[in-house]
Amino acid sequence: MAKAPKNAISPTRQEDYPEWYQQVIKASDLAENSPVRGCMVIKPWGYRLWENMQRALDDMFKATGHQNAYFPLFIPMSFLEKEAEHVEGFAKECAVVTHHRLEPDPDGGLRPAGKLEEPLIVRPTSETIIGATYAKWVQSYRDLPILINQWANVVRWEMRTRMFLRTAEFLWQEGHTVHATSEEAIEETEKMIQVYADFARNWMAMPVTIGAKTAGERFPGAVETLSIEAMMQDRKALQAGTSHFLGQNFSKAQEIVFQSEAGTREFAWTTSWGVSTRLVGALIMTHSDDDGLVLPPKLAPNHIVILPIYKDDQRAEVMQYVKSLAEELRAQDYDGAPVRVEIDDRDMRGGEKKWHHVKRGVPIRLEIGPKDMQKNAVFMGRRDQPKSVGIDRNELVASIGDLLAEMQQSLYDRADQLRKDNTVEITNEADFRAYFTPKDEENPEVHGGFAVCHFADEDSLQPLLKDLKVTIRCVPSEDNETPGTCFFTGKPAAKRAIFAKAY
Amino acid sequence: MAKAPKNAISPTRQEDYPEWYQQVIKASDLAENSPVRGCMVIKPWGYRLWENMQRALDDMFKATGHQNAYFPLFIPMSFLEKEAEHVEGFAKECAVVTHHRLEPDPDGGLRPAGKLEEPLIVRPTSETIIGATYAKWVQSYRDLPILINQWANVVRWEMRTRMFLRTAEFLWQEGHTVHATSEEAIEETEKMIQVYADFARNWMAMPVTIGAKTAGERFPGAVETLSIEAMMQDRKALQAGTSHFLGQNFSKAQEIVFQSEAGTREFAWTTSWGVSTRLVGALIMTHSDDDGLVLPPKLAPNHIVILPIYKDDQRAEVMQYVKSLAEELRAQDYDGAPVRVEIDDRDMRGGEKKWHHVKRGVPIRLEIGPKDMQKNAVFMGRRDQPKSVGIDRNELVASIGDLLAEMQQSLYDRADQLRKDNTVEITNEADFRAYFTPKDEENPEVHGGFAVCHFADEDSLQPLLKDLKVTIRCVPSEDNETPGTCFFTGKPAAKRAIFAKAY
Repeated sequence: MAKAPKNAISPTRQEDYPEWYQQVIKASDLAENSPVRGCMVIKPWGYRLWENMQRALDDMFKATGHQNAYFPLFIPMSFLEKEAEHVEGFAKECAVVTHHRLEPDPDGGLRPAGKLEEPLIVRPTSETIIGATYAKWVQSYRDLPILINQWANVVRWEMRTRMFLRTAEFLWQEGHTVHATSEEAIEETEKMIQVYADFARNWMAMPVTIGAKTAGERFPGAVETLSIEAMMQDRKALQAGTSHFLGQNFSKAQEIVFQSEAGTREFAWTTSWGVSTRLVGALIMTHSDDDGLVLPPKLAPNHIVILPIYKDDQRAEVMQYVKSLAEELRAQDYDGAPVRVEIDDRDMRGGEKKWHHVKRGVPIRLEIGPKDMQKNAVFMGRRDQPKSVGIDRNELVASIGDLLAEMQQSLYDRADQLRKDNTVEITNEADFRAYFTPKDEENPEVHGGFAVCHFADEDSLQPLLKDLKVTIRCVPSEDNETPGTCFFTGKPAAKRAIFAKAY
Repeated sequence: MAKAPKNAISPTRQEDYPEWYQQVIKASDLAENSPVRGCMVIKPWGYRLWENMQRALDDMFKATGHQNAYFPLFIPMSFLEKEAEHVEGFAKECAVVTHHRLEPDPDGGLRPAGKLEEPLIVRPTSETIIGATYAKWVQSYRDLPILINQWANVVRWEMRTRMFLRTAEFLWQEGHTVHATSEEAIEETEKMIQVYADFARNWMAMPVTIGAKTAGERFPGAVETLSIEAMMQDRKALQAGTSHFLGQNFSKAQEIVFQSEAGTREFAWTTSWGVSTRLVGALIMTHSDDDGLVLPPKLAPNHIVILPIYKDDQRAEVMQYVKSLAEELRAQDYDGAPVRVEIDDRDMRGGEKKWHHVKRGVPIRLEIGPKDMQKNAVFMGRRDQPKSVGIDRNELVASIGDLLAEMQQSLYDRADQLRKDNTVEITNEADFRAYFTPKDEENPEVHGGFAVCHFADEDSLQPLLKDLKVTIRCVPSEDNETPGTCFFTGKPAAKRAIFAKAY
């Protein structure tokens, strides 16, 4: 029997999923922890991934009528106090600027000096500072709607951090809109969660469920929070994006008031919505395997890496061939843009070089040496398949766009199958308990995925959910019209919710 | 005699240049002051300008082999202390984070809580935090060069702020590179100042002089600082970008050490270089006039705005015509990309609408009504010329790319002429004093432009320069080989420097 191949990542997903995640990030050179507590360094390969995400999302925001702007990093402490739930939600984890210079410390070194009259908070989110600005901009119904997005860094002083998923500083976008009517604001909230779902599905190849958060899980200050929820390979849920209908809560706190067409003074209706570098974590955990990162072609910095193989005297000939192939491939179209091809001609052992790109998730590797050239062939490794195969050069060039599209789809299908296989309807508490209780003491990570249950009352569930470390992810917006009975309380329930352990 | 037209901006440049600058920003909707001291809000029109600058610069950085990455917003206080000149330069103006949460204040409201063991500085620039990371990445000469850029926000607690030119928080890019040899690092420093000069000249239509800063004007911790200096319309100098050769100063402070090919342990050689949202201020002050913003077409968010003019019953017909013209124009190429066209069909008085776009600097306005349609003509206003003219529709479409290119060039030429007209060689102190002494007590802003003088010793000049509020801008790198005599000291001087009042 053939020996099982050694994997590039240790431990494997099966052995220790959380540690596997950290090791994939390290092996694929996406990011590393920084010397600053809870903050990470996003390395070039990771940042290119984020840039590709940004570009796609930014185009989608602009296509739905939004413009970018930029608001201050700092929020005066008094601004945060104005919305009671909001400050409750963020006061416990925020970086506070109290001084504006350093001076020599008599004991040596430096110490803070120049105390500020009012402390400044490093924005954890910008509803309050942006709202204060909007209050000046909005006078009349003619000034509405305001449809603005901001790309920015934010800081939340999380105690337990994990790269991309939960870091003290992270990069994100935050949309903040103002509308004349409740209906319009709700429409915007729904439109943007659809944009996020579209991005997750079509760019990240990540299936998601759109739904509403229950009251206990809403954004602090929101009337309604919609989210997209994805299933990671350990069957935990990950909230990948949120869109909040804020009602008039923030417009009342910030006095965003307008004169209506009828001449009355009205509080405006606002929304906010955001996704962050957390999406990179979601991408890693959706597709990667025990050999490292796996990238959907639409977001991969490179689609193809060509690895020329030669002895010294063959170099010129092989490189010429490889360069002309690269040009031919770059002239092909994938998803409306040229195919992205890199040639890796570094002086390095062939195996090492191959694994370098496997671990970094490049969708397609092409190895080409003099023998392949003679046969007009290339040796192709698809990152989503275990074995490399020989393929005719011209056939490759002609089919490359289709091949990449097929990979994109197959990654989606695989993730979707996992989700289907690990989503069950549950109608009684015993089954619910069993589903979320680890089967294997050695491996407490092995537990159920998504449980779909009718429920009537969030509060009464809390002891059970806490006990099992399960949360209500969302009340799905689609395919959720059949009423039933809440087995927790025995009461009639109009909708089902998804329950899961979560990141 | 015709009455002089009233200008859209009051005061005019002539009347009060600093106030004119603020009013142009207001009238063109670029930005506004925020409720946070010294921080501004960059509004959508201003942010689109910055996005266009970012895109062009980012492409240039990537074309010269650089990759983007992202490093933490916070710098531990102890990191800043390591390079003596550096901390000296930034300690007096930095935002210091001392706490990580808020708690209820017994006197009401909130107060900072959770004191940090070590204060964190909000980055004023990232040499120290990035250097600490590079120290881990660099082991061998094989790891070099490192060529990385970061797009980020930084904070410098400036006491006197002015929108875009000097704000407490600003957006910028900072390149940070590491090299095995001094020569390579110097080459990088020079390459990047050339990139900045190229961007200023060819994108911003802003003539600049490349030169070296004198010792007193260098970046804190740099061995050599190169800058590009531009002349604003009030004949003051503006430093628009800098590129620093840091020698081994930061690699010694941060222990960026590598094993050379010969096996020895060596300190690496580093550089850093940056431009910021200050460029938007430079753009405003280079081209704008007493009617508002003037934008070079290459950076303008829109090249053309079409203003349809009709009575109610003509709307359908005019809009159809206008839309088809817009499509034709968008199919034309300017500078390798489609012409950017907006149709402004808002319900608004014609004059008001026209001035809206004049003030915002849209390069070309087209007014079109039923009479123009009959003649197959359009009424065109070029933002760089006072009068609108009638032009044949087909001729316009055919020549639009050339027209925009001509506007771009004419803005450059006009700025270059101003600079030439206000640059003089000065060879004695009396002339120097006279040149920089305001001619008109009523108008203290009216003074000389650039004085080009041989000089031998920076320190001995300080009293005179301080007295006249003049600084040494740079020692130009080009066309500066003729030795002479320093009239300040009578000593022989190898090079000339540019002296000017400056932003």
